[in-house]
Amino acid sequence: MAVLRVAGVGAGYFSQFHVDGWTRLPGVEYVALCDTDAGKAREMADRFGVPRVYADAARMLDEMRPDLFDIVTPPATHRALVHLACERGIATVCQKALAPTFEEAQAIVDDAERAGIPLVVHENFRFQPWYREAKRLLESGTVGTPHSIAFRLRPGDGQGPRAYLDRQPYFQKMERFLVYETAIHFIDTFRYLMGEVRAVYAQLRRINPIIAGEDAGYIVFEFAQPRAPGWSSTGGHGEPAIAAQAASAATGLFDGNRLNDHASDNPRRTMGEMWLEGSAGVLRLDGSARLWWKPHQQDESEHRYDRGPDDTFGGGCVASLQAHVARHLAEGKPLENSGRDYLANLRVQEAVYRSSAQGRRVEID
Amino acid sequence: MAVLRVAGVGAGYFSQFHVDGWTRLPGVEYVALCDTDAGKAREMADRFGVPRVYADAARMLDEMRPDLFDIVTPPATHRALVHLACERGIATVCQKALAPTFEEAQAIVDDAERAGIPLVVHENFRFQPWYREAKRLLESGTVGTPHSIAFRLRPGDGQGPRAYLDRQPYFQKMERFLVYETAIHFIDTFRYLMGEVRAVYAQLRRINPIIAGEDAGYIVFEFAQPRAPGWSSTGGHGEPAIAAQAASAATGLFDGNRLNDHASDNPRRTMGEMWLEGSAGVLRLDGSARLWWKPHQQDESEHRYDRGPDDTFGGGCVASLQAHVARHLAEGKPLENSGRDYLANLRVQEAVYRSSAQGRRVEID
Repeated sequence: MAVLRVAGVGAGYFSQFHVDGWTRLPGVEYVALCDTDAGKAREMADRFGVPRVYADAARMLDEMRPDLFDIVTPPATHRALVHLACERGIATVCQKALAPTFEEAQAIVDDAERAGIPLVVHENFRFQPWYREAKRLLESGTVGTPHSIAFRLRPGDGQGPRAYLDRQPYFQKMERFLVYETAIHFIDTFRYLMGEVRAVYAQLRRINPIIAGEDAGYIVFEFAQPRAPGWSSTGGHGEPAIAAQAASAATGLFDGNRLNDHASDNPRRTMGEMWLEGSAGVLRLDGSARLWWKPHQQDESEHRYDRGPDDTFGGGCVASLQAHVARHLAEGKPLENSGRDYLANLRVQEAVYRSSAQGRRVEID
Repeated sequence: MAVLRVAGVGAGYFSQFHVDGWTRLPGVEYVALCDTDAGKAREMADRFGVPRVYADAARMLDEMRPDLFDIVTPPATHRALVHLACERGIATVCQKALAPTFEEAQAIVDDAERAGIPLVVHENFRFQPWYREAKRLLESGTVGTPHSIAFRLRPGDGQGPRAYLDRQPYFQKMERFLVYETAIHFIDTFRYLMGEVRAVYAQLRRINPIIAGEDAGYIVFEFAQPRAPGWSSTGGHGEPAIAAQAASAATGLFDGNRLNDHASDNPRRTMGEMWLEGSAGVLRLDGSARLWWKPHQQDESEHRYDRGPDDTFGGGCVASLQAHVARHLAEGKPLENSGRDYLANLRVQEAVYRSSAQGRRVEID
């Protein structure tokens, strides 16, 4: 396999996970890092042994000619940065949020398609090992016919006047916060596990008056009709406890607030708890990334699986996404969350904000 | 204290808890039990040592002249039975659902008020020891400023073609089921803990096709502005972690399905799990009726309290409600859930059904 030469832009808080991931990945050479703040780029480069730093992204791309451009900058900069890659025909991975508005996200996707470059949105939550395992259990029929998913998000970092300042201070100023910044991960993860979203209702609010956007809310999801693999299963543990119901589509619930925390040695590992329920029982994710399986009317017990490293973000999901992209580029394996696919998440996100503003259920076009 | 002479009507499934409660209560004499099925009345009377049985309620009231009439029959019979008590000036406790429709419930309340008899709705969940303790912790300021309550209802008794048949077979035929029969308990309990409900959104559905009504659903509650005791507290564990926010009213979430169960040695004890969250931390109720207190950013630990007997319904809440009514009648102590007060629950219930049918947030008049 030829070496994949990666150059990145953005040396802010989350960049460390990207650079760490790429520099550990076999078959990848991380050739340069760019930031308009050259000091920050230099610091990050020194930490991970990156050979070159730049303050200008166009110059970096021209001089280094990477195979892949990894964008880890604020959303407002994405359109121009992706365009640099389009002009040069360089495959690109762009962090979420893809853009400040839906229209701009769409323009970025159009730009990449016109240029014929692969564009992937770096949406890493679905690559967290617990969701990969949950998906496997769904597809193997263990859960039976799934009918509900719920996530309680409680990172506990949003209290008081200094909320978010130490790590991601711009969180305080975002007009759209909980959904745009955080719940978007669960919109994507719910779609990954349960299929497309047909309609939503949302009730969003701000509890901490110090910030600009919403920091708490409920989102009710209605999923489209069950799809083939696993969804029409008769259950992996004997006969299904509920008769298969073609007419009953699954539903989902996101219950989030950033003020309270949950039982966990690291409340940012899973950021909360999940329940995935079907005719055969309940699969539960706890705050230590353990999965628990409760067969219907039997005792709950731990379902052991590889939770990934506990000393990096989200069980190593950044590196897993990077490996997924590298495999796609090297071997043509199917790609998750191409820019075009990712617009489905943003359509749900827009429906969520509209629903909360209008106090009504909103169907997704 | 003079002896309170109680006569009851209804010898169905739930009657055993009523008769058991009354016959154990000091200062109460349970004088007679009536059921149109005289055999069932006789069986129940024998079991609890009730001296007289009747098949006709009017005759029982005329002959026994009780101080209190305890109605434990299906909702459609309540109006006529309460009217018997009205005609005779006998204080009455009537099981929920108070009536099949809101209009009929209102007519019952009007009838009792015209007759000048005390009418209490037997809504016992708020008397479960865990909610009494949660209320105490709210009022003592332990939770800080409360902002969210959530309940996951998972009794696990609603799967398959034989769902509910062994215990309460009429559940299968009810056109309105999950909210009318079950969530109404949590509407009342949420109001008990968090105050009045300003608006709701609901998404209800039927998962088990064998039954007539809905057996799963989400209800989002918006509570009215915080009220005085405990609500403006500065927290019982040092300074509040969130600045007091007069403008932020609390919200609530009911997430129920009767198909799946939850971790518990008796899934009908609490029927699910609760989280009550405030600026100072999270109070959690588990399936064994244990309470857990998690101060913000500290470890969760068990909060010990008297969970009540584990061999009867809901920690002895039936007897607690009965003792509450007896104290009111004997000493004039304030009464919870008079018929008039209870209509507030039914207004929320009607809003829930309307919201689900119309797909929009509904404000309570």
